[in-house]
Amino acid sequence: MKIYVAQLNPKIGDLARNTDKILNSIERARLEKADVVVFPECAISGYPPEDLLLFDSFIDEMENQLQRIIKSSKNIFVVVGTIRKSVNNNQKNSLFNTAAVISDEKLLGYKDKTLLPTYDVFVEKRYFESNDQQKVFEHKGKKIGILICEDAWAHVEKLAIYEKDPVVDLEKLKPDLVLNLSASPYYYQKKDKRIDIFSKVAKDLNCPLILANQVGANDQLVFDGHSMFFDKNGDLTVVAKGFVEDHLLIDLKASYTKYSYELDHLKDLYSALVLGVKDYFRKLNLSKACLGLSGGIDSALVLCIAVDALGPHNVLALSMPSRFSSLSSLEDSHKICDSLRVELMDIPIDHLYQQYLDLLSPFFSGKAFDTTEENLQARIRGMILMALSNKLGNIVLSTGNKSEMAMGYVTLYGDMCGGLGVLNDVSKTLVYKLANWINRKKEIIPNNIINKEPSAELRANQKDSDTLPSYDIVDKVLQGYVEDHLSLDQIVKKYQLDSILVKSLIERIHLAEYKRRQGPPGIIVSKKSFTKGRYFPIVHSWMS
Amino acid sequence: MKIYVAQLNPKIGDLARNTDKILNSIERARLEKADVVVFPECAISGYPPEDLLLFDSFIDEMENQLQRIIKSSKNIFVVVGTIRKSVNNNQKNSLFNTAAVISDEKLLGYKDKTLLPTYDVFVEKRYFESNDQQKVFEHKGKKIGILICEDAWAHVEKLAIYEKDPVVDLEKLKPDLVLNLSASPYYYQKKDKRIDIFSKVAKDLNCPLILANQVGANDQLVFDGHSMFFDKNGDLTVVAKGFVEDHLLIDLKASYTKYSYELDHLKDLYSALVLGVKDYFRKLNLSKACLGLSGGIDSALVLCIAVDALGPHNVLALSMPSRFSSLSSLEDSHKICDSLRVELMDIPIDHLYQQYLDLLSPFFSGKAFDTTEENLQARIRGMILMALSNKLGNIVLSTGNKSEMAMGYVTLYGDMCGGLGVLNDVSKTLVYKLANWINRKKEIIPNNIINKEPSAELRANQKDSDTLPSYDIVDKVLQGYVEDHLSLDQIVKKYQLDSILVKSLIERIHLAEYKRRQGPPGIIVSKKSFTKGRYFPIVHSWMS
Repeated sequence: MKIYVAQLNPKIGDLARNTDKILNSIERARLEKADVVVFPECAISGYPPEDLLLFDSFIDEMENQLQRIIKSSKNIFVVVGTIRKSVNNNQKNSLFNTAAVISDEKLLGYKDKTLLPTYDVFVEKRYFESNDQQKVFEHKGKKIGILICEDAWAHVEKLAIYEKDPVVDLEKLKPDLVLNLSASPYYYQKKDKRIDIFSKVAKDLNCPLILANQVGANDQLVFDGHSMFFDKNGDLTVVAKGFVEDHLLIDLKASYTKYSYELDHLKDLYSALVLGVKDYFRKLNLSKACLGLSGGIDSALVLCIAVDALGPHNVLALSMPSRFSSLSSLEDSHKICDSLRVELMDIPIDHLYQQYLDLLSPFFSGKAFDTTEENLQARIRGMILMALSNKLGNIVLSTGNKSEMAMGYVTLYGDMCGGLGVLNDVSKTLVYKLANWINRKKEIIPNNIINKEPSAELRANQKDSDTLPSYDIVDKVLQGYVEDHLSLDQIVKKYQLDSILVKSLIERIHLAEYKRRQGPPGIIVSKKSFTKGRYFPIVHSWMS
Repeated sequence: MKIYVAQLNPKIGDLARNTDKILNSIERARLEKADVVVFPECAISGYPPEDLLLFDSFIDEMENQLQRIIKSSKNIFVVVGTIRKSVNNNQKNSLFNTAAVISDEKLLGYKDKTLLPTYDVFVEKRYFESNDQQKVFEHKGKKIGILICEDAWAHVEKLAIYEKDPVVDLEKLKPDLVLNLSASPYYYQKKDKRIDIFSKVAKDLNCPLILANQVGANDQLVFDGHSMFFDKNGDLTVVAKGFVEDHLLIDLKASYTKYSYELDHLKDLYSALVLGVKDYFRKLNLSKACLGLSGGIDSALVLCIAVDALGPHNVLALSMPSRFSSLSSLEDSHKICDSLRVELMDIPIDHLYQQYLDLLSPFFSGKAFDTTEENLQARIRGMILMALSNKLGNIVLSTGNKSEMAMGYVTLYGDMCGGLGVLNDVSKTLVYKLANWINRKKEIIPNNIINKEPSAELRANQKDSDTLPSYDIVDKVLQGYVEDHLSLDQIVKKYQLDSILVKSLIERIHLAEYKRRQGPPGIIVSKKSFTKGRYFPIVHSWMS
């Protein structure tokens, strides 16, 4: 039996064109003499369709598109992720996240998702009902079991939150092959875990397992693809490409050797960020971006990502010096633009800055220079970027990193301006690692940018370290408090940090919530981002 | 039997002080010789505690505070909403949204919530497990049943989404009194529905019913209080005050007459907006606000709300005319500030505007005046407001209304600047109704502001109607598409509108999603806001 795995990049809600792609893959599978073709979770709608699911017309149109797939399934067995409306046991209208199982122009049935993730970015219980029943479908003498994404993960990873383990129930049905339809978003170092989990599931089921994973970025989520085939010993043998559409053709009769791989987590992280930018623009029918280059490492990194995502001719860089900008920052900005062949505009802002100071001085008399004046500079820059964006159509890329967003070390409506926050979910520690990874073969980001002490250059001789502890400490508290939900005491103990310092950093994280709430959507590359899937009150007074 | 109903205004996460208030109410109940004292849902944490629930330390501290309540319950029966950790039937750690039932220094047990709303702004299945079991607790010969918020609503309103009806199950236990612990957020005209629902529940249970509802604003949600007592015939007999802390003392032996009331929905709406502003500031330990006064109706209305919430001395208004501002707008701004005794600063922006035009002209050569130049003016105003805010500590109130937010007829980082979007969830239709309601006795908002044709005054002779259909039509599409999830065809049919027009408005709603995503948090006063509880992709291509 040959199985064709179609790793597609759907656009949310583009039901007809997503289905066109599905039909095209079925045709290719037929040409490859495949017996079975399998698609990712929610392949017709794209994942996650979010509140589009609240429109009856949306659900009905998915059903129409499914009929097209059924009609195109002559002589082939198709398993495709979609969403179906049905009445549940109590005669209530319900939606199910499901796999439609089709053979030779007939719908054989559905295998509904059992475990509905409702944590972090996932809100499946908002839309779907669970179906506990596990099933196998017979085709050419083989019993094919189907699991949808989380249904397999819970076997290893998330048992603590679910009452059922679909893998255990499926095992009783003695499948000969198991297909997992997934839309499993990328996060840093997730591939390790994914391999471990599916390896164990295949081994425990004692049967070959195929993972068909969605690829592509939808809003803030990036799906990395990397569809996989595990043999019945749980050995990973075949892996599809990451971050692009691809397909696998698996022959169950063939003997595969164990896949040998070296995980390159930084390469994956960089690829995820590039795809996040690329798909955001492509799927919005946009092509051109602009960004402010400060001479610092964050904007340099975003420039590299933008160039790889959109091409150098589609990226416009702006250098907008004030009286506090250093000469070396300007030189470094020119240097990186030269090497990446990106157009750089110089628009000095000091004259405008002085105009604001003059206009406001009657209201500020006697008050010292403070963050007000710093923010003015950042906001003038934001306004200029937005004006160019409005006039020329280049979408602004925001360059703040996750550590800064945590600390509130960013200016709302200033450097936070932008259609997409490229590094919103990348800690400063990872920013440095990525910069060095980019320079692994040759100096693309000027070493001076990487090596200089971080500074916002919004007042004379400013350094980030004037108001922040080292990013190493910030990032530990970020990990402990935001990602792992540890208490103050637990963080102090785990990282051997000073309690007063940690408390002050947690307070800063709380205080900056109002800024982050108005930040640009960011590309999610961690297990817990600020930008989506974190529901934190602005007004509260909790301190653990 | 006498029941003391404590309608409290908790602050999210302020566990010790919320508990202090609870203990104080118990003391007062004792002085009033009450037998029973009942508190709202999640009274210890405040509702909704959101992701604070992911910290074990938070759950543990709620337990500590519950112990304080138990120790203070000498000779009294206390029912208090809290959250408890327990193992479920499958030995998994779970959280329950629950009522702790306490008598005479002993914890008698818990009544867990059965129905967990996970739609709109509610995400309870993210945190809680459901407990299907209904119970009664005996006290002084009476069987007291307990329902938590949604557990009663579903009996009438939301049966379609749940498999259980806790009211029907509770009825079998023949309670003599039912307590409903609620944190039921306000929306426009909800009181009608709430009365209808609880009246029917009391009648069907054939027993007296007490609703103890939270009051106060937490972030974007406003809880209106209005705790109620229904007799066993389902007649509403006693109602607590709305939008303030209050208590009721209900004597089950007394005979009450049917409560006669006239619903004043506009008064409630206005009160909700005032409380939304007041609690946002108070709970953040802030007192001063500022806003831009354009001479239009939206900023005039926000000024009235701010003055009622914070006092005129805490509100600073800014008039920031450009070359396109009309003289009458300036005069109207002065007039309303005079009548409300609010300080008005005049900061003309035209000089700055010209500086931007000059600076940018080399990059804009040959391009016509467009929204770029309009946005520049709005953004200069936003920057000036933010600079004053940064320097003086006045929080910026944003004045855009829901119809504008729907259409994208707002400038991101311009008039969308602000810590709180007071009218984010108020349609233009309701803005007019509220303005007229404010002027019901005397002219507070100059009639000229109410009667003039809406204009953003960002280009010569501009009118909103240049680029938008009448707000009457916008608001119908807003209702149909955003609140009711109707398809294009359904909207066309229901409101007898032109299909091409409706399609263009839906497209505008989609296109403006990226702006709204970066808008300030708004005060929610409708059944479906843009600002919270609407999960809509930015990148998609659905058109119903």
